[in-house]
Amino acid sequence: MSDLDRVRAQRLMGAAGIDALVFFQPEAFRYAIGAYAGVATMWGRAGSAIAVVPSDTAASLAAVISDHASAGVASLRQSVDIRTHRIWIDGVALTGQETIADIDAAYRRMENTGPRPETFDQEACFRLLADILVERGLDKAVLGADFSFLPAADFERLKKALPHVTWKDASDILLRLRAIKNPQEIERLRRAARAAEAGLRSLASGVKPDASLRELSAAWLQGAREEAAAGGFGLSGHWDYISVGPDLTDGSATVKPGSLIKADVGTLVEGYSSDGARTFVLGQPASLATELHAILHEAFLVGLEQIRPGRRFGDVHAAMLARFRKNGLNEYYRGHFGHSVGGNAGIEEWPFFSNGNGEVIEQNMVVALETPFYAQGFGALMIEDQFLVTETGTECMNSLPRDIIRID
Amino acid sequence: MSDLDRVRAQRLMGAAGIDALVFFQPEAFRYAIGAYAGVATMWGRAGSAIAVVPSDTAASLAAVISDHASAGVASLRQSVDIRTHRIWIDGVALTGQETIADIDAAYRRMENTGPRPETFDQEACFRLLADILVERGLDKAVLGADFSFLPAADFERLKKALPHVTWKDASDILLRLRAIKNPQEIERLRRAARAAEAGLRSLASGVKPDASLRELSAAWLQGAREEAAAGGFGLSGHWDYISVGPDLTDGSATVKPGSLIKADVGTLVEGYSSDGARTFVLGQPASLATELHAILHEAFLVGLEQIRPGRRFGDVHAAMLARFRKNGLNEYYRGHFGHSVGGNAGIEEWPFFSNGNGEVIEQNMVVALETPFYAQGFGALMIEDQFLVTETGTECMNSLPRDIIRID
Repeated sequence: MSDLDRVRAQRLMGAAGIDALVFFQPEAFRYAIGAYAGVATMWGRAGSAIAVVPSDTAASLAAVISDHASAGVASLRQSVDIRTHRIWIDGVALTGQETIADIDAAYRRMENTGPRPETFDQEACFRLLADILVERGLDKAVLGADFSFLPAADFERLKKALPHVTWKDASDILLRLRAIKNPQEIERLRRAARAAEAGLRSLASGVKPDASLRELSAAWLQGAREEAAAGGFGLSGHWDYISVGPDLTDGSATVKPGSLIKADVGTLVEGYSSDGARTFVLGQPASLATELHAILHEAFLVGLEQIRPGRRFGDVHAAMLARFRKNGLNEYYRGHFGHSVGGNAGIEEWPFFSNGNGEVIEQNMVVALETPFYAQGFGALMIEDQFLVTETGTECMNSLPRDIIRID
Repeated sequence: MSDLDRVRAQRLMGAAGIDALVFFQPEAFRYAIGAYAGVATMWGRAGSAIAVVPSDTAASLAAVISDHASAGVASLRQSVDIRTHRIWIDGVALTGQETIADIDAAYRRMENTGPRPETFDQEACFRLLADILVERGLDKAVLGADFSFLPAADFERLKKALPHVTWKDASDILLRLRAIKNPQEIERLRRAARAAEAGLRSLASGVKPDASLRELSAAWLQGAREEAAAGGFGLSGHWDYISVGPDLTDGSATVKPGSLIKADVGTLVEGYSSDGARTFVLGQPASLATELHAILHEAFLVGLEQIRPGRRFGDVHAAMLARFRKNGLNEYYRGHFGHSVGGNAGIEEWPFFSNGNGEVIEQNMVVALETPFYAQGFGALMIEDQFLVTETGTECMNSLPRDIIRID
């Protein structure tokens, strides 16, 4: 199912004077239509998958999609106006009872005949888009596209294919729609956070003298995968930024007594990425580490107090930075202390807890709050948790204690 | 080190009337400069990392790069004119002997003070690019950029920041440069192919009744990782498209006697992806599977005969398609029977073994030749190997036999 709220989209389009949204970015296609954009998007070029979201909420969504990926759209429990184009991948339906001589007929029965393009036929895709627009009286309309993705080369061709359309940049509308999550998006982010945190527990059990960064990373992933399997869901991806010890750039580092281990990790569920972090230490932490971590923890808590509907993203940043200053760190400066999470291309999503950010925090946003401290030559420390913004405040999607996790 | 051949770049720029190449895509930055573009490229926006390649081979390469990622560029064994901008990530160098009160001074010693932007400051990045161009007398020049990546929104801002530049699309020049590999690129692709093939051997050992697709995927990855570790290199990524049995869309499929298992897999070494595939069967294959695989194998061999310097990419496609026709498959149609491999964003790189493709095969291209057959309701079959184009023909980077791999 589509994750896009048609009523909110209509309101945002109305304010911007836009008649329909047209998305080319694969992640935006999945968001608007509810099915994957398919393998022909691998080159980052526009056209193979196009989502059309009319402002008129009574008009159905429309999708241009490859024949290879069209089954995903067709199986949705919602009506989408689908136009397919042939890509390079051949396929046919067989039972296995056929002989070679029967196979031609199987292709013809499916009306699956004729040449296929080298990769995908961008002109054909833009013609299918033109058909949709003409049929809906939108071929001379004001359309909003995701200029934050649409490659300049493809935009030139799009303008030629649709000479009467007035194109506007709708990247901000897309970000604004994405920032508020529906229940299924929240559930994906809950699952992703749960798997990643199980991975952190697994990582903790792997911390011992001479354990390598690679082993800790593998232990993390193992724990995350086991949690997902136990929970009956799959992971569509994963990432980790782990540092071990004083050299933050040393990928072959091993654990020594007192080593700071910073694990900033996430798993993806149906394309939605969690984001969370903890700091571990083998044995006794240096007193500087203990003091720094206490400052990070304090700043984290004063930031968290600010997260509730009606406050601004900038309020969180201001409160946290002020606490760093109060605790004697006058030159430490983070551009942001966290961000939304979701299913967009970058793990960190708009809006950010950044300096002077006037964006208002709203219910059903899902955000990650973070206090990292990277000290090359000493070690990295970080606390990061993920929160659902509720009617009155926040609900934490993590459960690990926020102190330095000491492994003895 | 940069992987880009300055002399070939100069020749291609000369033919296109371009004075310098300016790349914004993270993969193109790494290719031109030889260091990673950094985490601020995660949103797919232009500016955080910019590579400048002057046509004049005596003029040094230039790079705009974040302070967070600049060490990678600075450590190269080649002279690059580096301009850095501050991103959101704070960092400081400490020894661990400091108290909290000493930390401010550590920032100031590094001249690492002042606010940081929410993410990265695109305007500042474009100003740094303008500085480079002005200093080199290129601010009124004809510049070639990667319009295949450059988002339309960012291109508008770029044109305003550099009002006197004439911009041309240099996407084709970038593809043409990438298509010929240097020894270090060839070595990455050899390693990646070796790891992926070790994974296939490991997968084979996991084929048994009721083994799940997920288990086979895990066995593949385990084998690939072990091979990389034994070879003393890391994997920067991996992917697999595995199908088990007749339903090609069933991610929870398990192995049954006679099940066709198609594994199309790759690992990445320093961003360079291998591509290769084999077909496995538990016990006795159906006679249709045996016959189809023999046709695929024949087509593969007639295609391979065509791969040598001077032949055209289209010759390979024509020979293979003719062999399918001769063997009675008149409606089977692949858009391409393979492609280059390398370090670009899509796994399959230009040029392709596609219909009528007049591009000439050249020495030191690295290509993957493939004959896939996807039969929903029956199973998928595929042969794919990776080849270095040599002076007289090809050198195969794989060693597994190309028959169906029968597991009893």
